Amino acid sequence: MSDDSEMAPGLETGNDFDVFRDAEGRINVLWLERLRAFLDADRAEDVALVMEPLHASDIGDVLEQLHAGERLALVRSLADKFDFSALTEVDESIRLDIMEALPNADIARGVAELDNDDAVYLLEDLEQEDRDEILSALPTFERLALKRSLDFPEDSAGRRMQTEFIAIPPFWTVGQVIDYLRAEKDLPDEFYQLYVVDAGYTVLGTLPLDKFLRTPRATKIDEIMTTSFVLVKADEDQEEAARSFERYDLVEVGVVDESGRLVGVLTIDDIVDVIHEEADEDIKLLAGVGDEDVSDSTMDTVKSRVPWLVINLFTAVMVSFVIGLFNATIEQMVALAVLMPIVASMGGNAGAQTMTVTVRALSMRELDGRRVRRLIRREMVVGVVNGVIFAVLIGIVTALRYGDLQLGIVIGIAMVINMIVAGTFGILIPLTLDKLKADPAIASAVFVTTVTDVIGFFAFLGIAGLWFGLF
Amino acid sequence: MSDDSEMAPGLETGNDFDVFRDAEGRINVLWLERLRAFLDADRAEDVALVMEPLHASDIGDVLEQLHAGERLALVRSLADKFDFSALTEVDESIRLDIMEALPNADIARGVAELDNDDAVYLLEDLEQEDRDEILSALPTFERLALKRSLDFPEDSAGRRMQTEFIAIPPFWTVGQVIDYLRAEKDLPDEFYQLYVVDAGYTVLGTLPLDKFLRTPRATKIDEIMTTSFVLVKADEDQEEAARSFERYDLVEVGVVDESGRLVGVLTIDDIVDVIHEEADEDIKLLAGVGDEDVSDSTMDTVKSRVPWLVINLFTAVMVSFVIGLFNATIEQMVALAVLMPIVASMGGNAGAQTMTVTVRALSMRELDGRRVRRLIRREMVVGVVNGVIFAVLIGIVTALRYGDLQLGIVIGIAMVINMIVAGTFGILIPLTLDKLKADPAIASAVFVTTVTDVIGFFAFLGIAGLWFGLF
Repeated sequence: MSDDSEMAPGLETGNDFDVFRDAEGRINVLWLERLRAFLDADRAEDVALVMEPLHASDIGDVLEQLHAGERLALVRSLADKFDFSALTEVDESIRLDIMEALPNADIARGVAELDNDDAVYLLEDLEQEDRDEILSALPTFERLALKRSLDFPEDSAGRRMQTEFIAIPPFWTVGQVIDYLRAEKDLPDEFYQLYVVDAGYTVLGTLPLDKFLRTPRATKIDEIMTTSFVLVKADEDQEEAARSFERYDLVEVGVVDESGRLVGVLTIDDIVDVIHEEADEDIKLLAGVGDEDVSDSTMDTVKSRVPWLVINLFTAVMVSFVIGLFNATIEQMVALAVLMPIVASMGGNAGAQTMTVTVRALSMRELDGRRVRRLIRREMVVGVVNGVIFAVLIGIVTALRYGDLQLGIVIGIAMVINMIVAGTFGILIPLTLDKLKADPAIASAVFVTTVTDVIGFFAFLGIAGLWFGLF
Repeated sequence: MSDDSEMAPGLETGNDFDVFRDAEGRINVLWLERLRAFLDADRAEDVALVMEPLHASDIGDVLEQLHAGERLALVRSLADKFDFSALTEVDESIRLDIMEALPNADIARGVAELDNDDAVYLLEDLEQEDRDEILSALPTFERLALKRSLDFPEDSAGRRMQTEFIAIPPFWTVGQVIDYLRAEKDLPDEFYQLYVVDAGYTVLGTLPLDKFLRTPRATKIDEIMTTSFVLVKADEDQEEAARSFERYDLVEVGVVDESGRLVGVLTIDDIVDVIHEEADEDIKLLAGVGDEDVSDSTMDTVKSRVPWLVINLFTAVMVSFVIGLFNATIEQMVALAVLMPIVASMGGNAGAQTMTVTVRALSMRELDGRRVRRLIRREMVVGVVNGVIFAVLIGIVTALRYGDLQLGIVIGIAMVINMIVAGTFGILIPLTLDKLKADPAIASAVFVTTVTDVIGFFAFLGIAGLWFGLF
């Protein structure tokens, strides 16, 4: 009764090459070897046979497991049977590799079969020239719908939306709608609600299918439609739309243009991807990696990481100049050089903790008015409390290690100062970036660690210099 | 036509206290002030009037904006009109505060109105004693369903599932099912598919509502049902269930017990929360903050962060002992103390980049067989390339700063070594933790920075000592 065997009926004969996924949900190595053998031997019929039961996302996973050459061989072997929606499930670099290698005519044929939102997803990253050639090979209606979606800004609701939806007039009865649904052949693949519109396609109400199903045939639509519905604007950012979905537990939402006309719908499966991307973006920005996938090439990876490392080199050199100010002090007491990274490292970690909580709260829009003031207060108190705890700990360790109580006191004082600084800047830096309309995730880490490094080294070496009269 | 004004019809009269949310989606300060005034003046009717148009998640946002005392006042003022599902939308600490302050009888009354999954969510974090008292105050059927859900492990599909669903026999016709749905009063609040079961509640097929609606009345259910469906097991981890939703773009999935009986369903709105939590967990574990919210108390925050800082203190002291080995070297050449944090810091950042990409790929199950080997190879090459780039940069800066080409060469060599180490351990450490069935996000950061610090200081000070004959 496992999910995967259910997706591929008949493939439950044991742990051999007929089973697509192993118990841990990974693609079965034997299955993959057999596919490879079929591809090598050009046995197109066998390839089609083993690929046939797979869902688009499974095909995507298979593509990611294959070498670049095998991927193309698979797509070519399947030819007309290749479901292009599988390409929406693979990393961008793989998608572009495959699409660049295929003739535009083949892509046009594949794209014509897709829902509008999947088609846009495949086309938006292509070169203008290729995109135009593919568009011009499509039927007029599809071409116009795709062009309209592509005209909306990147990452907007309009880009992500599906332009197929079911709009009905308010004066129909439930029976009329059911008859219409049964007769009409050109319906969206999947839909979760009906849109009640006037002649100008302004939304008057929505009707979830479950509510619709519970209602007798004779009932008029406008008697049962929901009038307190959510709509998103086509030029709205997809992350804003995602927040509406989460806030109101939506499964589908109508998308309207600037004049309020219903032009498409967003469904939850697109939004799940957006939520994932958004969280992923926060994590990666905090660590200083760009929009990077595991399948990116070595050169792309280097390019994505160098800028962040350059900034870090710059700040590290700056910090080292701060240490350089205390050359003479260190010369007289080498123990300071040995101990100073402890103060900086603790501050850096405490700062990262505060910063991470703040960045996540900002990106989930959890920080308004009162909560900001409360959070600042809390983080400063946490800084003081943790500062005192770790001042005592490191003070004792240091005093014992060097048999020098005064050195323990000095490092303790520096620790308290740096932990309070860490808490304060850990929250103020992302808040300030947010106020300046910058993404708080991107630059907070470098600012925060620079501050805790500078203050950590400066406080420790400075206080030690004064205390022991080393200046 | 904005989403929020649509959710609160009639509140579109301009930017005054009648508008619930401002243009940026935050709760309007004037609106909140008015609510506070009503609460202060004990005007329960007015409180009920302004709260009435709000969705449960909006009520949750209002609760989060209020002070602890005001929250209770609001819940008490609304009394029977308070929708307990709003409590599923607030941070855990706020939820527990409110529930601990309310009499168990009130909670029982509120919980009885909720869907099974929301009720479980509220009850699972309560003290055993309170939970039992609330359960015993519930009607038998609800009590048994809740008890069964609570028996499943925490974070399992069984805990999250909703026990209300629509099961139909395969031999019914579409018409019979529609008549049943219209007649039956006790249906789930929302549903997206029907479950076709045998007499023992084994699932034979599923039927999405849209497909069902397109079919003539006389058609038998078993002719149109989907037989390649996905099911999840009740004791399966909710994150596994979430992956099934993402992989197959599901909106609802059946949950079966160990004997294969359908016992409940999971819907996408629960899964969206799981996806969010999971990404959030990765981010927070990487930064060394526990399961922490912005509304947690100061003491809870300290408690959540101290363990990580203790580990960091321990490794920082260890690193400082490594530096201590080179006491004599530093004494002879203080410039080494000034420069050494640069090598360590660059290694730490490069390691964090590799580690973050690896941790995310692991938690999204993107790393199987071939890709792991490819990723290790790539990260090592990236380490070499970035190592050389930054070795040259820092070598030049150092040579110029100190007028000492040899010192530039030494720091350059140390940099190359540490960058390669960073790439290698940045990937091997999370992979090893994953193999050992530990969460790679939790401990990777501390291991990786310890390694890059130790190797950074050791390589730089060691090579310098050898090069300049300082031992």
